[in-house]
Order: sequence, then structure tokens, then C-alpha cells
Amino acid sequence: MKRLLLIGIGAGDPDHLTFQAAKAIAATDVFLLVDKGEAKHDLSQLRHDLIAAHARDPYRIVEARDPERDRTAPAYTAAVENWRSRRAQIYKSFITDELADGQTGALLVWGDPALYDSTLAALDEVEAEFEHEVIPGISSVSALTARHRVPLTQVGRPVHITTGRRLAAEGTTADDVLVMLDAACAFTEAADDFHIYWGAYLGTPDEILISGPVTEVADQIRAARTEARTRKGWIMDTYLLRRTPPNAES
Amino acid sequence: MKRLLLIGIGAGDPDHLTFQAAKAIAATDVFLLVDKGEAKHDLSQLRHDLIAAHARDPYRIVEARDPERDRTAPAYTAAVENWRSRRAQIYKSFITDELADGQTGALLVWGDPALYDSTLAALDEVEAEFEHEVIPGISSVSALTARHRVPLTQVGRPVHITTGRRLAAEGTTADDVLVMLDAACAFTEAADDFHIYWGAYLGTPDEILISGPVTEVADQIRAARTEARTRKGWIMDTYLLRRTPPNAES
Repeated sequence: MKRLLLIGIGAGDPDHLTFQAAKAIAATDVFLLVDKGEAKHDLSQLRHDLIAAHARDPYRIVEARDPERDRTAPAYTAAVENWRSRRAQIYKSFITDELADGQTGALLVWGDPALYDSTLAALDEVEAEFEHEVIPGISSVSALTARHRVPLTQVGRPVHITTGRRLAAEGTTADDVLVMLDAACAFTEAADDFHIYWGAYLGTPDEILISGPVTEVADQIRAARTEARTRKGWIMDTYLLRRTPPNAES
Repeated sequence: MKRLLLIGIGAGDPDHLTFQAAKAIAATDVFLLVDKGEAKHDLSQLRHDLIAAHARDPYRIVEARDPERDRTAPAYTAAVENWRSRRAQIYKSFITDELADGQTGALLVWGDPALYDSTLAALDEVEAEFEHEVIPGISSVSALTARHRVPLTQVGRPVHITTGRRLAAEGTTADDVLVMLDAACAFTEAADDFHIYWGAYLGTPDEILISGPVTEVADQIRAARTEARTRKGWIMDTYLLRRTPPNAES
């Protein structure tokens, strides 16, 4: 049997790696690195660095090019599903052509493989014989709240994890809302009594943290986001919206 | 200045520890271990084991007894707030009496310090001079979804993280609901078209995983939960409810 490991590598800091993930890297014969293009060079470099630090000889690295995804398509889900099917083809080729029976392949997944990552769903579409295992990673949600030193959940209260598109369409549907994948700064539409804890490039030397009442810091976040995105060519950011937190600091 | 580290140690597996957390343990002069009583001996043992594995001499361990909390009180939030104030007293004594200026103290927090953990909120109440830092950990949510090899979030869709009490009171308010702290098996009230991914003692040798349509596996989960809780004296479990997942396996 062929074995595939989905290894969560954390949100940017190499030290987010768990011992379990390091052992999984050490147990891997062939790594598949899917190149997302030059813009996200830092993320690609992190994967290479972690392999260099933890893999054991003999091992191989196979590189593939990420299929283009139409990020401007109004039919977001359809665009993602199309992209996912092409991803599934890459995984199938990897398993079929690069892994021998008894060998272990690995995919290094940014953050936690369970949170807004399509790898698991794409693997469901792969028509090949293999078994797979998931190694959890530090998510950008955990990294964000740790750096701001705020809990994600308040006592006995729920938290809603959603996307920027949904927030723009539905508004804040809970008192605590964690938003990912928001390229359009939908937080500017949050009600006046919300506090925001925003972070970009979490756990890396480029990390930016801004928090305060949305009404006071929204412009500052938007400006910081635009500047950083222009300078680096890419951005990954996330934020927590919380209604009137106790001990709010502006 | 005195420094306090809140270190997330993951959901039960010692290998959930991150390199960042291991370095934080190595940088600690004094550890505060709050004993939750004999019943949760395994969790206490994990903390001792991680300190023994990663701390550097010289270091000290200070032990305190967790204040009793009335878990049957109908006013859940009030009971937690009362308990938290007494926890804050323990932290204050630790910082004031056990840490010298320039020293680093640490609390080892199960899972991720951001998720349904009161340590951060209790620290907000501590009247003492100190700075603090949070080290994120693998949450039971990440551990659960990794072991079941399912994503927490589906493409472009939100997930609601809530408690058993809320689920019992409000029902499933989303198509994807992650439930924690459910001692009363509120999942039995979920609609017929929900699938459940349940796990207890995640990442430990006692781990139990059960998944399937709620209508088919609810009794099995309830029985497994009761048996395990009786045998071990404690249980920590969590689950994901998902409406009609693609590729549902029963």
C-alpha cells in the first residue's frame, strides 16, 4: 500500500511545527511541493526549509505547478471546485507515478489542514489506491489569538468562523466572528460596537498586528494591508471581530 | 519585570507539542501546575512529562489546587466567573511570591489557550506587575478533524463553534457545528440529516473515534462515553456535526 501524509506546518513561524509533524517529515520518502508561483515565495521557502531541517535521507522532492484559479469569478464555489479537480489530478499523478508500494509521500499544508484548505477535499476525488493520514497544525486562528493574547471564545459563548465573502453578504451573525480569506476588507461594514484584532504574516518577521474599535482602526488596517501587499506581492491575513469586549483597549 | 508564558501543549499527544512550546518550556524558571484532582491524573501527568522532557535546569515546579467549581449550577456563566476570580488569586500569588524580577513563569494549558480556556480571562483580573505571552497549541478541534480526516470548514462555508449547553438550547444553528464541553450528549437532538464525527481522549492511547449519521451512531457514542467516563473517572470529548456531507460513510 502507498501512504500519503497531510502535514500541517503551522501559520508561518518554523517553530509552529509540532514534534508529530517533524517525525512525519522524517518518515517521508517523497515530498510533493505544489508551487503557487513567485508571489508566495516565502511560503514555498518555508516548506523547503522545514524539509531540509527534518527530512531523513534518502528522500526526494517532486515539484508541481498549482493550477490557475480564477479569483475574480463570481461563482466562487464553482471556481474552487474546478481548481480542486485539477489539484486532484496532480495528487493522482504523484501517487501513481512517484510513490512505490510501501513508500510514504507527504504534502506540507500551511496552517491546519482542516481550516479553509482544499487538500482533503481534493484527495477525496483522487482515484488511486492509497491510505492517508492527517497531522494537525497550528492554524492562523490560533496564531492570531495568541499574538493578540485574546481568547477566541468567551465563557459559554459561541464563535462563528467564516469568510470575507460571507461577512460582506451576511454581516456579523454573532458577537464573536473570526474571518478568513477577506481580500475586500469586509470588516469596514461591522457595526460600531465591534472591536477588531487583525493580523497578517503571523509568526513571520513581516508580522503586522493591529487592534482596536473597528471605527477607529479600519482605515489603518486597510492602509497597512495595501502597503504590505504591494511591497511583498502577496498577503495572508485574518481577524477576529468581537462585540464590546471587556477591557477593550483602543 | 516578571514574565509569564501561557503555553499550549496540544490535545493529549505529547508529540502535539510545537518547537515553540518546547523552547518556551526550556526558557522557564518556575512552572505553576494547578492540580484538578485525582480524576484528571492523565492530564496532570502529561504536564509533568513535558516539563521533564524539555525544561532546563535550574527550574522549579509550584503546585496549587484548583478551586472547586459548581458544575451543576444553573447560572453557568456566574459559576465560571466566580471560579475564575479564585483562579486569578492563585496566579497573583504565583507571580508575587514565586517569581523574582527578571524570571519567567509558565502555565501549561491543555489544547490551545484561545479555545474555551479561562486562563487568559483570569489573567486579566490579576492585579500584579507582569508581562505575558501566549504560545498557541494544537486544539482538540484540530486533533478531532485530523483523526477523522475531515475538514472543519467546507468551501466558502462557515463553521459554528459552540458548547453543549448552547446546542441543547439553540439547536444546530449552522450546517457545520463544532461542539465542545457537552456532558449531556446534546447531539442526540440534531436533525436526521446530520452526520457526527465524535472523538474522546484525542491523541492518547485511550482515544475513541466514532462517526456516522447521528441517527445511527448516537446510542453507540452515548454508551462508549458512559463506559469510558466510568472506567477512567473523567472524559474530554468533542464533535463535529455536519449536514449531509459529500461522500458520507455510515
